[in-house]
Amino acid sequence: MTIKDIARQCGVGVSTVSRVLNNRPDVSEEVRQKVLAAVEANGYIPNNSARDLVKSRSDAIGVVVRGTGNLFFSAMIKTISREIDRRGYTMVLRYLSSSEDEVKAGAILEREKKLRGLLFLGGRFNYMPEEMSLIGVPYVCCSYTNSFGTLKEKDFSSVSIDDFKTAYDAVTLLINAGHKRIASFFDLCDDHSISELRYEGYCAALKDHGLPLEEALVVQTGGFEMEDGYRGMKELLQRGTSFTAAFVESDMMAIAAMKALRDGGKRVPEDCSVIAIDGLALTEYTSPTLTTMVQPCDEIAEESVRILLDMMENGTGGVHLRPQAHLRNGESVRVLP
Amino acid sequence: MTIKDIARQCGVGVSTVSRVLNNRPDVSEEVRQKVLAAVEANGYIPNNSARDLVKSRSDAIGVVVRGTGNLFFSAMIKTISREIDRRGYTMVLRYLSSSEDEVKAGAILEREKKLRGLLFLGGRFNYMPEEMSLIGVPYVCCSYTNSFGTLKEKDFSSVSIDDFKTAYDAVTLLINAGHKRIASFFDLCDDHSISELRYEGYCAALKDHGLPLEEALVVQTGGFEMEDGYRGMKELLQRGTSFTAAFVESDMMAIAAMKALRDGGKRVPEDCSVIAIDGLALTEYTSPTLTTMVQPCDEIAEESVRILLDMMENGTGGVHLRPQAHLRNGESVRVLP
Repeated sequence: MTIKDIARQCGVGVSTVSRVLNNRPDVSEEVRQKVLAAVEANGYIPNNSARDLVKSRSDAIGVVVRGTGNLFFSAMIKTISREIDRRGYTMVLRYLSSSEDEVKAGAILEREKKLRGLLFLGGRFNYMPEEMSLIGVPYVCCSYTNSFGTLKEKDFSSVSIDDFKTAYDAVTLLINAGHKRIASFFDLCDDHSISELRYEGYCAALKDHGLPLEEALVVQTGGFEMEDGYRGMKELLQRGTSFTAAFVESDMMAIAAMKALRDGGKRVPEDCSVIAIDGLALTEYTSPTLTTMVQPCDEIAEESVRILLDMMENGTGGVHLRPQAHLRNGESVRVLP
Repeated sequence: MTIKDIARQCGVGVSTVSRVLNNRPDVSEEVRQKVLAAVEANGYIPNNSARDLVKSRSDAIGVVVRGTGNLFFSAMIKTISREIDRRGYTMVLRYLSSSEDEVKAGAILEREKKLRGLLFLGGRFNYMPEEMSLIGVPYVCCSYTNSFGTLKEKDFSSVSIDDFKTAYDAVTLLINAGHKRIASFFDLCDDHSISELRYEGYCAALKDHGLPLEEALVVQTGGFEMEDGYRGMKELLQRGTSFTAAFVESDMMAIAAMKALRDGGKRVPEDCSVIAIDGLALTEYTSPTLTTMVQPCDEIAEESVRILLDMMENGTGGVHLRPQAHLRNGESVRVLP
């Protein structure tokens, strides 16, 4: 049983069967049902690879993941993988540590695997046109933007929450709960990364509410992993500065920071409130459950793939989406009396 | 700058340069250093895809992941991806929910992507030769075995801890700590899956220590996700049966079960001790930290890829490795007075 047999049986062309199997929109519902029924009845195993129809053309889409310990990315990769499959392409995945350069890795992957498009899952926020000329295929920045760079908006696409605003909102929530001494934890505050944007959001929220920015309350952890969150909170406790709340830039780091608080004899939220960004399902089960700004993971992943395919297939230019993060109340923030 | 230029410059053949770039063993250290120096000096971006040398042959290895919420698998995929890359192949990843059939999905993927090998990450334990004849390439069962099936050992490979023994050891630890009423949580106890093996380990540990198996203490959660662990513990609390300890078959389910205990007014480990299997880094930060049997993730992932490539490249037969899980003591188990 081949795709030709199915086509003959349904009285349609091979390309129509292929369109049905690849979930393309340009097929009538009637034909779609007929083809799917024939596929089912014959136990035909569809071959959804574009390779079969266009043998000389690759169907590979590269996904370069920077920062391997990030559970937030693990959740997104599943959705990205499903969407790429569903559209008949092949995902080629490469993991980088956060110290590696995703642009160079993407360029290598493009040549190795004859990619037709690239999706960067995490990356720097300061791309320059010269370095991006290494990339010869359409690409999407997934979960980050180019806030500190000089790319033209039309030359790339991005799907990300507004990191500045999300951090601003989280810190404002703490301020509205009566907190005045709010510590904060970032990878680095001046590396033109996601952390710098979130740091700026923290600073702006303090400023807009008439609170001073105190260096003693800002911890640069030098990393984005759990151990960095733990070490960061430990360092803050050793400084001896008083604080009643902490803004931590990721859920995983916040879980680790809460452990450091416990180990230092502090209770959450009685002695210190904690708020974070990400909204991992996991943090609905931690003790205490985490108050966090939830990123719309599925939406970010789905839109990134959709936009990339549109660039690849239709030559569309840059699209920039900013889906909203929303607050999920957990038990980790206390309203001061 | 092409691979030919590098070869000419070093006075070696293109295939030698390729072997160096693909980390193959059959090159002298002297030649390796010379080639790498030329690559570095010329800023050459190596193309480690086998496709370039053997254009007509695919370099794709399929990785079929069953059970998408499993963080244990997320950690392994990174290692598997790195190892497949390092050996010059391309990983093609497909995620399935735990209700989907990995054999059929693997067969489809094999045809679609012209796979040369398949790595199943999670799957059933009861394969029959007839169904496996769908798979036309070498495959490895990664993190599971064929305990309930009828495959010949030489016809496939597997790398997994001994699930029966690991569960037996975990429950024995609780018994040695003085616990006599030990609840347990499994997906299903009779579905010829990993859960059945772990359930048998639980039963055997009770029996060998003269404790009765009480149905009221066994919870079948009907799933492997966090919500299943939570719901399972809630159900147990509603039964009203007394217990002083719980064996939970995965770390993620254990985190959720501890939340259900808290929500039910029970403290861990004062009112109930908890032990699990997996050893996720995360559970070193939970409150309390989790006592758990650590699976050697990296070893399982690396050996699975190594064995699969050996089957593909050298036609070797089945290899079955059983790396040891080891105990990591957390704060979740109390020794009864």
